Parts: sequence; structure tokens; C-alpha cells
Amino acid sequence: MGDKMQVVMKKEAKSGATLGTKEIPKPKADEILVKVMATSICGTDLHIYNWDEWSQNRIKPPYVMGHEFSGEVVEVGENVTSVKLGDMVSAETHIVCNECELCRTGQAHLCEETKILGVDIDGTYAEYVALPAENAWVNPKDIDPAYLAVQEPLGNAVQTVLAGDIVGKSIAVVGCGPIGIFAVAVAKASGASKVIALEVNEYRMELAKKLGADVVINPINEDPVEKVLAETEGKGVDVIAEMSGNPTAIKQSLKYVKLGGRVSMLGIPNGEVPIDIANDVVFRGITIQGIAGRKMYETWYQVKGLLQSGNLDIESVITHRLPMKDFKKGFELMQSGNCGKVVLYPQDK
Amino acid sequence: MGDKMQVVMKKEAKSGATLGTKEIPKPKADEILVKVMATSICGTDLHIYNWDEWSQNRIKPPYVMGHEFSGEVVEVGENVTSVKLGDMVSAETHIVCNECELCRTGQAHLCEETKILGVDIDGTYAEYVALPAENAWVNPKDIDPAYLAVQEPLGNAVQTVLAGDIVGKSIAVVGCGPIGIFAVAVAKASGASKVIALEVNEYRMELAKKLGADVVINPINEDPVEKVLAETEGKGVDVIAEMSGNPTAIKQSLKYVKLGGRVSMLGIPNGEVPIDIANDVVFRGITIQGIAGRKMYETWYQVKGLLQSGNLDIESVITHRLPMKDFKKGFELMQSGNCGKVVLYPQDK
Amino acid sequence: MGDKMQVVMKKEAKSGATLGTKEIPKPKADEILVKVMATSICGTDLHIYNWDEWSQNRIKPPYVMGHEFSGEVVEVGENVTSVKLGDMVSAETHIVCNECELCRTGQAHLCEETKILGVDIDGTYAEYVALPAENAWVNPKDIDPAYLAVQEPLGNAVQTVLAGDIVGKSIAVVGCGPIGIFAVAVAKASGASKVIALEVNEYRMELAKKLGADVVINPINEDPVEKVLAETEGKGVDVIAEMSGNPTAIKQSLKYVKLGGRVSMLGIPNGEVPIDIANDVVFRGITIQGIAGRKMYETWYQVKGLLQSGNLDIESVITHRLPMKDFKKGFELMQSGNCGKVVLYPQDK
Amino acid sequence: MGDKMQVVMKKEAKSGATLGTKEIPKPKADEILVKVMATSICGTDLHIYNWDEWSQNRIKPPYVMGHEFSGEVVEVGENVTSVKLGDMVSAETHIVCNECELCRTGQAHLCEETKILGVDIDGTYAEYVALPAENAWVNPKDIDPAYLAVQEPLGNAVQTVLAGDIVGKSIAVVGCGPIGIFAVAVAKASGASKVIALEVNEYRMELAKKLGADVVINPINEDPVEKVLAETEGKGVDVIAEMSGNPTAIKQSLKYVKLGGRVSMLGIPNGEVPIDIANDVVFRGITIQGIAGRKMYETWYQVKGLLQSGNLDIESVITHRLPMKDFKKGFELMQSGNCGKVVLYPQDK
Repeated sequence: MGDKMQVVMKKEAKSGATLGTKEIPKPKADEILVKVMATSICGTDLHIYNWDEWSQNRIKPPYVMGHEFSGEVVEVGENVTSVKLGDMVSAETHIVCNECELCRTGQAHLCEETKILGVDIDGTYAEYVALPAENAWVNPKDIDPAYLAVQEPLGNAVQTVLAGDIVGKSIAVVGCGPIGIFAVAVAKASGASKVIALEVNEYRMELAKKLGADVVINPINEDPVEKVLAETEGKGVDVIAEMSGNPTAIKQSLKYVKLGGRVSMLGIPNGEVPIDIANDVVFRGITIQGIAGRKMYETWYQVKGLLQSGNLDIESVITHRLPMKDFKKGFELMQSGNCGKVVLYPQDK
Repeated sequence: MGDKMQVVMKKEAKSGATLGTKEIPKPKADEILVKVMATSICGTDLHIYNWDEWSQNRIKPPYVMGHEFSGEVVEVGENVTSVKLGDMVSAETHIVCNECELCRTGQAHLCEETKILGVDIDGTYAEYVALPAENAWVNPKDIDPAYLAVQEPLGNAVQTVLAGDIVGKSIAVVGCGPIGIFAVAVAKASGASKVIALEVNEYRMELAKKLGADVVINPINEDPVEKVLAETEGKGVDVIAEMSGNPTAIKQSLKYVKLGGRVSMLGIPNGEVPIDIANDVVFRGITIQGIAGRKMYETWYQVKGLLQSGNLDIESVITHRLPMKDFKKGFELMQSGNCGKVVLYPQDK
Repeated sequence: MGDKMQVVMKKEAKSGATLGTKEIPKPKADEILVKVMATSICGTDLHIYNWDEWSQNRIKPPYVMGHEFSGEVVEVGENVTSVKLGDMVSAETHIVCNECELCRTGQAHLCEETKILGVDIDGTYAEYVALPAENAWVNPKDIDPAYLAVQEPLGNAVQTVLAGDIVGKSIAVVGCGPIGIFAVAVAKASGASKVIALEVNEYRMELAKKLGADVVINPINEDPVEKVLAETEGKGVDVIAEMSGNPTAIKQSLKYVKLGGRVSMLGIPNGEVPIDIANDVVFRGITIQGIAGRKMYETWYQVKGLLQSGNLDIESVITHRLPMKDFKKGFELMQSGNCGKVVLYPQDK
Repeated sequence: MGDKMQVVMKKEAKSGATLGTKEIPKPKADEILVKVMATSICGTDLHIYNWDEWSQNRIKPPYVMGHEFSGEVVEVGENVTSVKLGDMVSAETHIVCNECELCRTGQAHLCEETKILGVDIDGTYAEYVALPAENAWVNPKDIDPAYLAVQEPLGNAVQTVLAGDIVGKSIAVVGCGPIGIFAVAVAKASGASKVIALEVNEYRMELAKKLGADVVINPINEDPVEKVLAETEGKGVDVIAEMSGNPTAIKQSLKYVKLGGRVSMLGIPNGEVPIDIANDVVFRGITIQGIAGRKMYETWYQVKGLLQSGNLDIESVITHRLPMKDFKKGFELMQSGNCGKVVLYPQDK
């Protein structure tokens, strides 16, 4: 029998999670084994923790949660050539088929055979994780492992903001959870003319401001349509980064996007959203884009490039760092909204 | 007092239209006067004829209806240099401000100051029409005036189909009124791999087939989602040209568009359409584009090029030709749906 | 010892090739073995046959020539899932690393680790060929194997012509070897407004005309700059597909491309070509694109789609069909230029 | 007779320029009269001053030099609606026909009928200048007029850098005259991963560093190909902004641009440049773009947006400010290369 490691598991089909132990996995021929140095909490992890409807349909307990991470490669399968022992890696968490039309035409992030690390297979809330070598992203070695871990959600923000022109354009980031906060930072780093953040949580409003939002609007306290128009000479913003999934926010955003503008949607509404297609989309010449995951691997190269630019402030987005065993505190923070990114340290016992 | 001409007018704020006479207009310094050789009936004209809610809010009777046309330039204003006497012209029917950001960045078709010929000002159901010289499109001289007249709605189809890649791609044209029929023809002419037409009217189903649709589906008789998937190896079509404005058809189209596909919407739904943004847009990586008018003037050059290619069959789309005085018969045909494009001849008394 | 098969080999470092035998290869875990049904002669094969300078630097005899082909899968390696016994396959002939930035960002056709079938490893002038399963392109079963074989060079033409807008645009195809001829066909199939072919060989001029070229110019007999301008209202063509590699032709093409136009270069000049960058590129706002191989695998899906469209006439491009043992006749045809595509049949003994 | 104003004229067909007086122009119906508050020296002005071969062919003395400027509108022609008295304007200096295909399809910057302010007609080295209202760009009122004046050359840099993706990409700016310096600033402001500047003049090397260049290379002192490759993990830069017009620099840049990269050329070489099209363009999948002027008016909106972003440091680029009467000192500075942008003040007597 192999060595044991500490993990955070979804043990049963109910809310919550459990600290436990599990055997350290053995990498297959095309896989690597990584010693996890930092792993961060995603909104998806919170859904699973809370055991919401989506989780009940998708997740098969017991399994190890978590997918955003970085760590050191400690073992490589026999066919692996792209990664070597000692490499400091993060990972694209979508494991795809590489054979379908989508995978073969630059749309692997939409592959129907996708398995997600920490969702469909054992994840990274663990001292060690095994994953396909092709999903590994090799990093420079002297960077804070927490920064490396959050490249995955940063990638969501990057794909959203860079899904069209952004340099010199105005943007509204609707919803400032961690990915929204990253979107604010990415837009500023990319030369957006004006970044308007919309958020209801005071903590996150402050964070948006800190990351460079030129204007922060609480749509509960003021009319977001009026306010955004007032901030844009009455014309609206060029770009919407829709991170909220809130039907009201979505409908409002279609009223304050500029004629001919772009609405890039990453947020996930529950149920149908009634859209005035004639007046808000057709006559106004609007483009709506569904954004999922990260482009494999264009987005990762963009993330790398933006980090190199020195224009991005990752430190401010990481508001909390905890030993993995204190994961419950992390989930409480995420539940409250009074945090940016929460990073867990599995080796810190 | 000037000479009189025959016109079809919306005289009063009620359904119908009237044959009457009006003074021949005098072109201003930047305008031209055109002797109308052919003018065709648009779906918008039918709305105005029927005096629907949109018309009641927009139209100010009495005025001359009609905007799709071609004719000979018989007088030019003193500042006009781009058009000369004897030119055979059609017209971009959106008269824009040329000063706003949209006009100055290739989005003039979305200009908020737009006035539409035959909607906001006197139109082309007349022996003569005056319009700004800059809106004139000079044609080769030896082409059937009816073909020249229908370039304007053909332009709507061209902007929709060419709003993204089409060569070698599969497309579903949803709704085969005259613009839908043109969309079928444009897609075939552009090397679409498979053109699937959806339409409920038998006459127009036949027309779609004649123009080259590979598959024609009547969504009343068979399940369009099942059928389109069956025709596309279960993957759906790359492109949707949404011409119906029908909420059910729109929702269905989002189920049979390929992952990562494009939905270009020209059709105008009444009221809101509930959209499953999470499952049909975000997770599937779909792009929805609102399409209005024609790009000024990229679309016109594309239309010209497609006509030159010899790949387009305009003749089959023009199903009826009538003297203008028989306009009521034309509107009845449009009402029934048993027609393609109906062309009126104002000089044919 | 294994079974033998007939092959055409480059046996020694000198001009010519030899009919011989070789052991039927054994596919590795990720490979497939294909029974070659048709294989066509590429211009590159002719260079190797003639043993020109490029060949002397690149090719390591003895080895089996040929790379354009189709055939039936008769054996699959143990790890292969994307292809199955009996599949009728063609192949992308660039075998790439899948690990570099280029491979991971949709530019695998530029991978620096590329090995080319029939150039760097044993090829398809053989009864059987082994190749990586991921390079196999599975075809429908009831298509002429010769058509399937020529998809690879057709792909070069498709990548060139579709490297920018083509629908409704005018194009000059400079040089009408087989890929140039395909470019003519692709442009016509894609709704180009006017296709102008430039070629000095009478046979190929005729072929260009047969495939739909609206104008065919022999630049020896008439001034191509004057002639192209005369055919385009003095404005020049929107697009150049440069297939000749001829320095004079390249310089001329920069004089008859429209202001703001596109020059897509697949042809390979020997040595440097003096370019008037100021007057022919900068002031005229021209875009020049280097085109190599086929996009992996966007181009293959475009080829598939164009074949499905029914707009492409492949039959006319395939001018000669020979048993493989008569390969010398094939190379003579290619040398003379009096042919389109020449197809060899290895099973036809 | 009208009032007189001070101007800097090219009086005769020889090198140099002269301070003189001229009647204040009277704006036509579509024109405005602007009191010039600041006007800066362009490289083109230096060519005219030096009376080089290009100038001898293009310029018709006597006339007033200068085109980069800002000023207050003091009179408007009777047809003018887009600008009003008191507006603080800069100008697009290309006066175009608005009627040709290029003007009507977003390529007005390439219009063959272009007249350039201060080149083909009287310019802005004057207390007052008249120009078409449509060329006026209305600015916010509380910005340093020098900043407003240099938007025109900044626009050249913006069009070059933003002619493709730049966010997260590496770029080499080849040649750091004022527009090159602006290109460095624009690339940094737009989130370029690494900005490498190449320049031989020490003063401008320092300036490039000050504006944010991560690496500055003097190609006389070190091998630029080796050095750029060393700075980019051996892969080369994603983007070249070619501002030098130097044949050696151009050829080198094609060796250190990444496979599949973009080379955007604004610099103007004298005579032909021999290009190894096969090895440096085709096989490497490079795109070369000729860049002229500014997109009318997308580029101006991008400039406006970048200024609003707060990411651009204009102050550091403007190294010298002089009364217009000291223009000779300004030209000497430009000749020496020991300056960034030199601004002249016509009202400062």
C-alpha cells in the first residue's frame, strides 16, 4: 500500500466537505504527479461545497475537491516529454479528447468530452495530484506559488476581456467576485480607457477600486443604466464583461452598452433570461459572446504575457492565505463575499 | 407650380395606402433627382401598410411609401460630384449624420440620427424621388432595373451571412421571406457546405429549394432540432441566419447551432424572448450578433462582387412584377407569403 | 521477416527515383498502417526527383517518396482511438511536436519540429504506409480515392485563398500549377467576384479557364499590370494568391493589387526578391502573408466543407491517372507542365 | 485687404524655411478657421526643410509648412455643424474625397485623392489655419495644447502597434524617432509583455527607456538578432513595429520576429529592399503590413481612449517647446536626433 496524503474531500452527497487522507496517486504513462504548493478556492468549489442543484447533478462523491493550483513536479509518466522533474507547474483544468472537431480547430475549451479536474476527477485540495502532462503549464521558478495558482481563474477573466478589442475602449465589469476583480485588473493593464465596476458587496467594491476601477457602482444604491451613461458621455461602454449571472444586471447591461458594442458573458444565470432581442440586440447591432473556460492554450500565453508586462497587480487580489486544514474558514469567506481570492496551502500543516 | 407625378401614399393613420399625385420634388444642393424605374416591396412596407403598432409610433402620414428602388438620375444638385446625369442608381436607404462616432468608425448603419427613405421621408413608390447624392449607388447600365432595386434587401442578407466565416461552413436560414431566400442564395454562392432552410409557407419552401437550399424543413411538420442535428452528423450548423423573429424558432436555433457557432439575427421579435443564457450561450461558447441595415458601404461592394461572381440567381427571387398602380395586389401577395420579391414599376401606367 | 511491398524510392543522392520493394512497416502504439489506394505527385516530389539544391540539403536517401494520398486503414496501434480499421483516410503530412507554443496556439503548421511524410520519413509511393493516427483525416467512404488524395494540396490552396475575405472580392492567382489551379477553383466556389489567372503554360492556361477563371493572362504575351488593371476598373484586384515564386511576377503583383489589398504568398522564390517597400507596401497599405502548409486542422474542415458544397470541380484538376510503376511518366508530365494533378495507383500493378 | 499673421514658409525650391507674414485665410462654407495654439515638427517637415528628393517632387513653394497642431476654433463656415466656435481642435491632416471605394469602406487613409495639410496646401506653422470641418477632432478643453497637437503622430504609432493583437505580446520597436518613442509608450500602455526598442542615437535610447522600454538595443554595438532572441527565450518577438525605414534593420527584424508573427511597417525605405521571401516570410508564416496615416477615424478614438486610460506618458515625449519664430532651432534639434517631439508656439511672439 502507498503513502497517504491529506486531502479535502466531498465525502457524501450533502453540503460541506471533510479533511481526510487518501493514497498518493500514481501517475499513468502520460501523466505527472505534482506536489501541491498552493491551491485556491473557485466559485465552482463553493457551489459544490454548498451542494447546489448543479452539483447534485454533476458531482459523484466521494472525491477530492479543488482545481486551481500550482506545485512541483515530483514524478513523470514514461511517455512524458513536455514536463520534467522539478518543474513548477500550474494546470489547465479542462482535460479534453484532442480528437473532435472542436479540439482540432482551436475550440478545445468547448470539447464535449471535457473532464474537469476537481469536478469530474480527483482534484488539488491535496498534498499531491496526478494529471495529464499535456495539461501542465510550466512556470518560471521564482514566482509566488499563490500567483501561479490563480492563473487559471485569471485566465477566465483574460478570455472574457480579450474576446474582442479592449485597448482604448471603455468597459463595464458586471459583478466583482474574484474573476470580476481580475477582469478589472486585466482591462486596466490592457489600456482600457475607462473601467467601470458594478458590484453590491462593499468589500469587493473597495477591491475593484484598489485594482484600478475608475468608477465603482453599487446598483442597489444608484441606477446603473443612468450612471454608466453619465460616465460615458451618454453613449454607454464599448464592452461588457458579464460576470454576475444576474438576470437584472444582464438586462441592464444591454441598456448601457454602446451601439455596436460587445457583451462577453462568463456569468451563469439560473434559468432563462428574457431578452428584448429586437431593441437591445438587433437594432443596436450588439454582439453577445458566450465565454467558457480558457482558450487552450492561447489564453495561457496571454496570461503569461500580461504577468510579464508588469501591469497586473495579483497581490491585491489574493486577500487571504490559509493552511488547507482551515478550508472551512476559506469557504465562509467566499460565502460572505468579503474576500478576493482565498489561497489554501496543503503542505502547511 | 411644378409638374405632378403618380405616387403611392400613406395618406392617413390607418391601414392601407392610396394612389395619388404629388409635385415632383426639387433636389437640394447635395441631392439628386431620380426617375424611378423599379421599386420593390419590403416587409417593412407591409408593416406600414397594415399600420401595426411599430408603424403607428414611427410613421407620420401623409407621405410617400417605398425605399427599395433603382432609377435614372435626371437632375443633380449644385454640390454633387459623385453622381452624374444618366447614371443608373440604387440607394442606401439609411440617411445618416456622418458626424457621430458610429458614422466615423464604420458603423454608420447604427447612427442614432438615421432617417430612412420611405419611412421618415418621402420614398420611392413614385415616378421620381429626391435623395442625398452620397446615398446613391451607381450601377452598371445594362442590368435589369428590378435586379438593381433588390440590392438593398439583398444587402441585408449579405450582411447577415457574411458577418463571419461562411465558406465551407454549414448554415441554417431560419425564415424564408425574401431576405431569407436571398440568404440561401448568398450562402450557396459563397461556398457554404450545406444550406438548411426553415420555413412554414409551402411557396417559399419551394423557392428556397430552387435557390439551392440542400435541405428544407417545415418546423410545423417535423422537429427542427432533431432534423438539423440529423443533417449535420449530430453537431449542428456552424451558422444561423435568423430571419424569422419568431421566439420559438430562435430558441430552437440555439439548440441546433454547433458549439462555438454563430447566430446572426436580422429578424425582429415582438417583445422579450426568454433565453437560456447559461446552457445555450455561455457553456456552448455561442456568439449572437444583432444585424441592422447594411454596412455603409462595405456591404454594397460585397453585393456588387457577388453579382459579378455569377454565382447568384436573382431572377428566381423576383417572382412578381406589377405596374405600380396595382400595388394592392402586391401587398396581398406579400401578406399571403406566396411570393418572393414583388417589384412595382412606377413608369408603367 | 515481414511481407514486402512495392515502393518508389529515392535510393541515392542523385536525380531520379527507383521502383523497388521494402518491408511493410509495422505501426507503433500511436500509429496506423494504411493500404494506399491513390497517391499524387506534388511539386515538392518533383524537386526531390530532380535533386535540386533544396533536396540535397534536406533529403536523406534511401527512403520512400510521396505524401499526398488516401487509403484504407488495415492496422491500428494499441493506443489509437480516433481511427478504426476500414476507415478511408487521407493525411495531414506535417507531423508536429504538439508541445511548443506554435502547436498550442493554432499554428502547428509552423512547428519547428515538423517532420514531413515522404520528405523526412518514408512516404506514400508505396503499397502501405505507417503514420501517426493523429495525422489521419477520416473521409466519407464512397468518394473517388484520387479526390481524397488531392485534399492535401487542395488544402494549400484553401489556406491561401481563405487567409482573408474572398466572398465578392476579386483575386489574381499568379502561377497555375496544380495548387494554383485549385486556388482558381476555390476562389470561384467561394463567390469571388472575378478570378484572374496568370500562367505561361498553354495547357495550364486552358485548365485555369476550365476551372472557372474569368480571365487568363499569359504574362509573356501581354503586360500583366496593364491587363489586370484594365480588368478591374483601374483599381487592381483585392487579393493576390502568389503561387509562382517568380520574382518578376511577385513585383508585378504588388503593382496590380488594390490599395489596402492582400497578397498571400505560397510560392517559393529562389534567393532574395527586391521589394519597393515604401511605394508598394507602406504607402499602399498592403498586407503580405506567408502561407505554409495547412492550418491543423481548420483548413481540413474547410476543404471538407467546400467539397460538400458541390461548388468544387476536382475531376477536371486530375488530368492523369497512372499505375505507380509508371511514375516516371508522371514526373515527365509534371516537368513539362502539361498536366494538372497526376495520380499514381500503387495497388494497380 | 485682410489681417496678416506670422507664418513659417517654404518660400523657394531649396533647403530651409523663412519666417514671414500672410493674410489670415477665410474659411469656406465647409471649413473652419483655427487659431493655432501649438504645432509640432514632424519628420516629414524635416524632409521638406532639407528639400530632399521626395520634397522636390511633391512640394510646390511658396506655401506654409506644418500639420501637427491644436488650436481654438474662431470662425466656422456656413454649412458647418460638427464643430463650434471655441472648440479646442486638433486635425486629421489627410483631406480625402469621401467618394471612392477606399473612403467608403473604412480605408480613407489610403484615398488616392488625398491632400495633406502643410504638404499640399497651407499648413499650421502659422497663427491661423483654415481646414475642412470634417477633419477637425474636437478635444476636451483643459488639456495642454502640446499634448493635443501630438495626437496626430501618436496616431501613427497607435495604428502601427494596434494593427493586430498586442495585449500580452512582445514587441520590438525598430527606430525610436518621435513616432517610435510613441510606439514604445503605446505598447507599454496596452499590456505588451516585453517592449524592446532598437535605436542608434543615445538621446533617443534614453528616451525609449524613460517611456518604458524593457530592453533598449543599439544595433551598432550589439547584434540585434542575437540580442532579441536572447531576450525572448530564443523565439523572437510577436510583433515588429518598423519605424526606421532602414533596409538592414528591416532584414534583421525578419530574423528575430517569432514564427507566425506580425511585422507592421510605417518606416519609409529609400529604394528597394531585398527580402528573402521563401525563408523569412513564407516558411515562417509571417504577416507584413504596410501602415499609412491613421484610420479615419478609428485611430483617433483609440488615441482618445489611450489618453483617457492614464497609461500614456505624453509629457516625457515632448522634450522641447519653442516660440514658432525659433523654428530653426527646432529643425536643428530634429536633425541631430537629440530630441523627442519639438513643439512650436505661433502665438508666443
